[in-house]
Amino acid sequence: MQSQISFKNDYSEGAHLEILNLLTQTNLQQEPGYGDDTWSLEAKDMIRAQIGNPDAEVYFVSGGTQANLLVISHLLKSYESVIAADTGHIQVHETGAIENCGHKINLVPHAMGKIDVTGIDKVIKAHTDHHMVKPAMVYLSQSTELGSIYNRAELEEISNYCRANNLKLFIDGARLAVALTSSEADLTLPEFAELCDVFYIGATKNGGLLGEAIVFNNACDAAGFPYYLKQKGALMAKGRLLGIQFHALFHDGLYFELAKHANAMARKLAEGIAAAGYGFALTPESNQLFPILPLQVITALNEQFAFYTWEKLDDEKAVVRLVCSWATKEADVDSFIDALNHR
Amino acid sequence: MQSQISFKNDYSEGAHLEILNLLTQTNLQQEPGYGDDTWSLEAKDMIRAQIGNPDAEVYFVSGGTQANLLVISHLLKSYESVIAADTGHIQVHETGAIENCGHKINLVPHAMGKIDVTGIDKVIKAHTDHHMVKPAMVYLSQSTELGSIYNRAELEEISNYCRANNLKLFIDGARLAVALTSSEADLTLPEFAELCDVFYIGATKNGGLLGEAIVFNNACDAAGFPYYLKQKGALMAKGRLLGIQFHALFHDGLYFELAKHANAMARKLAEGIAAAGYGFALTPESNQLFPILPLQVITALNEQFAFYTWEKLDDEKAVVRLVCSWATKEADVDSFIDALNHR
Amino acid sequence: MQSQISFKNDYSEGAHLEILNLLTQTNLQQEPGYGDDTWSLEAKDMIRAQIGNPDAEVYFVSGGTQANLLVISHLLKSYESVIAADTGHIQVHETGAIENCGHKINLVPHAMGKIDVTGIDKVIKAHTDHHMVKPAMVYLSQSTELGSIYNRAELEEISNYCRANNLKLFIDGARLAVALTSSEADLTLPEFAELCDVFYIGATKNGGLLGEAIVFNNACDAAGFPYYLKQKGALMAKGRLLGIQFHALFHDGLYFELAKHANAMARKLAEGIAAAGYGFALTPESNQLFPILPLQVITALNEQFAFYTWEKLDDEKAVVRLVCSWATKEADVDSFIDALNHR
Amino acid sequence: MQSQISFKNDYSEGAHLEILNLLTQTNLQQEPGYGDDTWSLEAKDMIRAQIGNPDAEVYFVSGGTQANLLVISHLLKSYESVIAADTGHIQVHETGAIENCGHKINLVPHAMGKIDVTGIDKVIKAHTDHHMVKPAMVYLSQSTELGSIYNRAELEEISNYCRANNLKLFIDGARLAVALTSSEADLTLPEFAELCDVFYIGATKNGGLLGEAIVFNNACDAAGFPYYLKQKGALMAKGRLLGIQFHALFHDGLYFELAKHANAMARKLAEGIAAAGYGFALTPESNQLFPILPLQVITALNEQFAFYTWEKLDDEKAVVRLVCSWATKEADVDSFIDALNHR
Repeated sequence: MQSQISFKNDYSEGAHLEILNLLTQTNLQQEPGYGDDTWSLEAKDMIRAQIGNPDAEVYFVSGGTQANLLVISHLLKSYESVIAADTGHIQVHETGAIENCGHKINLVPHAMGKIDVTGIDKVIKAHTDHHMVKPAMVYLSQSTELGSIYNRAELEEISNYCRANNLKLFIDGARLAVALTSSEADLTLPEFAELCDVFYIGATKNGGLLGEAIVFNNACDAAGFPYYLKQKGALMAKGRLLGIQFHALFHDGLYFELAKHANAMARKLAEGIAAAGYGFALTPESNQLFPILPLQVITALNEQFAFYTWEKLDDEKAVVRLVCSWATKEADVDSFIDALNHR
Repeated sequence: MQSQISFKNDYSEGAHLEILNLLTQTNLQQEPGYGDDTWSLEAKDMIRAQIGNPDAEVYFVSGGTQANLLVISHLLKSYESVIAADTGHIQVHETGAIENCGHKINLVPHAMGKIDVTGIDKVIKAHTDHHMVKPAMVYLSQSTELGSIYNRAELEEISNYCRANNLKLFIDGARLAVALTSSEADLTLPEFAELCDVFYIGATKNGGLLGEAIVFNNACDAAGFPYYLKQKGALMAKGRLLGIQFHALFHDGLYFELAKHANAMARKLAEGIAAAGYGFALTPESNQLFPILPLQVITALNEQFAFYTWEKLDDEKAVVRLVCSWATKEADVDSFIDALNHR
Repeated sequence: MQSQISFKNDYSEGAHLEILNLLTQTNLQQEPGYGDDTWSLEAKDMIRAQIGNPDAEVYFVSGGTQANLLVISHLLKSYESVIAADTGHIQVHETGAIENCGHKINLVPHAMGKIDVTGIDKVIKAHTDHHMVKPAMVYLSQSTELGSIYNRAELEEISNYCRANNLKLFIDGARLAVALTSSEADLTLPEFAELCDVFYIGATKNGGLLGEAIVFNNACDAAGFPYYLKQKGALMAKGRLLGIQFHALFHDGLYFELAKHANAMARKLAEGIAAAGYGFALTPESNQLFPILPLQVITALNEQFAFYTWEKLDDEKAVVRLVCSWATKEADVDSFIDALNHR
Repeated sequence: MQSQISFKNDYSEGAHLEILNLLTQTNLQQEPGYGDDTWSLEAKDMIRAQIGNPDAEVYFVSGGTQANLLVISHLLKSYESVIAADTGHIQVHETGAIENCGHKINLVPHAMGKIDVTGIDKVIKAHTDHHMVKPAMVYLSQSTELGSIYNRAELEEISNYCRANNLKLFIDGARLAVALTSSEADLTLPEFAELCDVFYIGATKNGGLLGEAIVFNNACDAAGFPYYLKQKGALMAKGRLLGIQFHALFHDGLYFELAKHANAMARKLAEGIAAAGYGFALTPESNQLFPILPLQVITALNEQFAFYTWEKLDDEKAVVRLVCSWATKEADVDSFIDALNHR
């Protein structure tokens, strides 16, 4: 148990109560294993309906790193590489999972966590023959590692480039919910889905116990994927655990409601920080905030609140990261702002 | 929802209610991620205490195939191989997960699902130089794929051989609970643990939603394992989900109680089948039964009961597999025996 | 330098003089690297012409294990497996190279080193879902590890089965030359080539310093292979070394002449052994002989001759392996027979 | 055959005549396979003597990419990474071979092709926990991809840092010979060898047909390496081919004589270019030159001479790469300078 109130991340609590309730209600119902249960099958249909693609293939896995390594290594030949931001989760925070599956990551310098066609094209142009890897996929995150959001125009440009250059576009949606429900968002779920080849819908960071729903827009991209899931240790015996969660989340818009709450809490927190006279290293766009605070303010806040110091800027101040979630209490946001103002 | 009563496996239901209750009670408590939560830390201590090894390193992962590939590939160098029964789960039912991590499996012919020193020694003797792999580990399951149980003498002989020949002994305990609580069992958990280098304690098939607790008896065997967990996509953000389950299971002996129930139901079922005049392909020892039934009896039973036909013996009869679990209702066992007798 | 005359293998000497001469003559000619030299390009054309397939893709690599792991892992997806004899080189003598590339080998019991459709079909029938690997290729050697040779009818049956069941047929031709020129042979090189998807033509064991020519009958199977060659460390900077050798070997039938010599020497040796009253564990068909000799005869012969004792049969006798090659001197064969008769 | 005189690389010709002669002289001598031949054993002793380390373990392999992937993946655990220059051969020109063996490369920005402790230390400091790879090796090339040479002080600083931080230091010596014999060199072979854990001595680019001699200074680092060589397809049946070459090269200083010639030819060429009024993108230090030439001069020179245009600087001029080797004829250098002066 932690004595501080934590703004460290969006996975500090368990699951939304609707999920726990549905788990409990259905608990003793006998179901087939390995994802063939009623709940998984129905949840996949619900997702297909909500992205507007009846032909999509949907698979549930346990986490983001697992989803990333499965999709990338499933779709690439061994000498093919994936292009990503130098701040991308697969580059920085997955202990070399992609390389361990045999693939090089070609890096593009980020701007606010995002990459663009100019950067991607430089990588493509630099890879000219079989003495080098062959870039065959673009990976990006929506929202990004830095909480920023690709807008429609940005994603369309990347999508068009990928299609013209025979590159798969794979979008890491561990935090997709906050991206789609941000006040900056100009894309609905089906509009977003249509722009890429494969993406996933994260539940772990938006109210689930665990779970990401991988969506292949074209069934042929998913050929053989069940074999691969099993081989990589990603096929859960009680697949119902994943199916039930997505069933609850995609019923009556719960998934989006939870993200709206996370964004609303973050916005309130951001406004309070700005009102207290502090700036931000990155413009707040979703549930992650990167304010710049004096070191002594950070020390004082840490008596009550837990959060990461992201980057020390100088001897006086640092960028910190504050994350809100589906479970963030408005009273805790108020306390934080209050504490900031009474310093 | 299934209309038949299922004896197909031991993972058809959700989790024991104590687990769901503890998940619900602790749900909104904020905890660190990735296994550093209070529940995981405490559950590891509980396991260390109950195996009588305060120095053991314990890691929770999501399933058996994941546990197998992690342990085997973590401990072996690329040219080292693992020795297993030709019926072993890693050989037959893991879609080549071990080979996909780079390691050959050297096969030993099984007897009732078990291997012995004679078979292991033949493999060792046959591998003489660097044009062949170097066997460096023995893998076995307790209980086995066929529901049989290694007794103390058998395990000690294998354990001694492994220690004398510099082979790691790794025991797959996906169904360890029914092995330790079987009426045939002559080993306690600490006595069992002491005989091998690394093993795991399965929760998925004994009342958990998911989860296997990997135990390294020597901490040095676990060096670097957290890196490896993350790299293979096996490190869960909400590690509490695993910790809470093992906490509930290892509190007040629940883990063993659940297995005793599974064994008791299986014994009752076996006695009923024998009383009805049918034999068994393998002597019942734990929660898996392999009776030999006439094909028309199988067809008739299938109207009410779901189970696997394991192997057709001839045009008249087949071996079937019946599995009982922590969740098997005595009334369902009675119904099955009743149906068998009224044919 | 060895004092005994060696019948241990077919790679004890250097290269045929034509090869050394061509290397020397062309030595200071400047050529492009990595297989784009004049000699490699011409040698590939010569091979295409002699197998009668102008569309074949030909790649030169340094050895048999390298050829096997490259072809198998290039053509299979990670969850696909290769079917092979339990005596197959990839199973027994490549230190797990195929598994190290991620693939399981499904074994078929051999008869005289050969497999057949009955054995292959059992493997196919046993693999039914995504909890198991998916067999997608058949690997066999011509001639086999035991010196036996598949005849036309045998290969056609396997080839037809593979085509009907969507399995690639890959033939290891490390010792292809002696198979095609054996007195038992009923297949020409083009007839042989047409029966499989990919095979290789071994030079290392038939007069070259090193080198196997991998032939893909369908160019689409070779897509991306140059990338893969480079990635696996198999692309030689001075590719001319391989091209020049195959150029010399496929000029004026030298390749076949060398193998005829090896077979003729083996036949003479076999006849001498039989005449001396000894039998064979396997009927001699190519350049490898497996006579059964008394242990004391073996000891006496070893004073003058080096060869492997293959398998001790009992306290009296053993199977030994005698190998003849392009470089075997008739005088040495005569000496061996002489020594045998004067025991 | 090429009509232009090539300065494209140092592997355009075959081998030095001493090598071809020794191959021919020893050709019909029967020898054990797989590196146990007389010549390989002697050549290893010669190398051990010349580096002054009787305990070193020496292995011969066929090329640089193969040597790099073997050493790096042999010495690293799967979650360990290797630090290299962003211009490093393993990063840029090996088609992701290192990643295909499972390892991430952490990049350090180069200066003239070289890295230093400041860059290495930044990588170390940035890798703090098991969500990231664990850097465990430093890789550098002597001479570098850009022809520059680490001097004693630079190498000592890196070596000391590695030893203090438990990092293996692995030096790619594909072009070691020109580095040791350059007029800039201040390190002898034994002095150089002592500074690292493992390095290799390249023959492919210094007069051999193929071959790199991997040297492990500590035998324990080589434990199991023969298994690994075989598994990766790197163990040559006729190992004599490699042993004989290194025998010839390390007899009477031939290896160093050839490199001195390459350096002398490069220096003469560099002086001619400078005298003709052209500058260099990098100061010439070994056998690779990077002069800056007007585009029309390049076009004119290309009628007679082949070389790579390395980088176009603007619409007027480009950096080209000119490489001299053991086989470069002084007359060709004169012709080049002549052609440059008569433009």
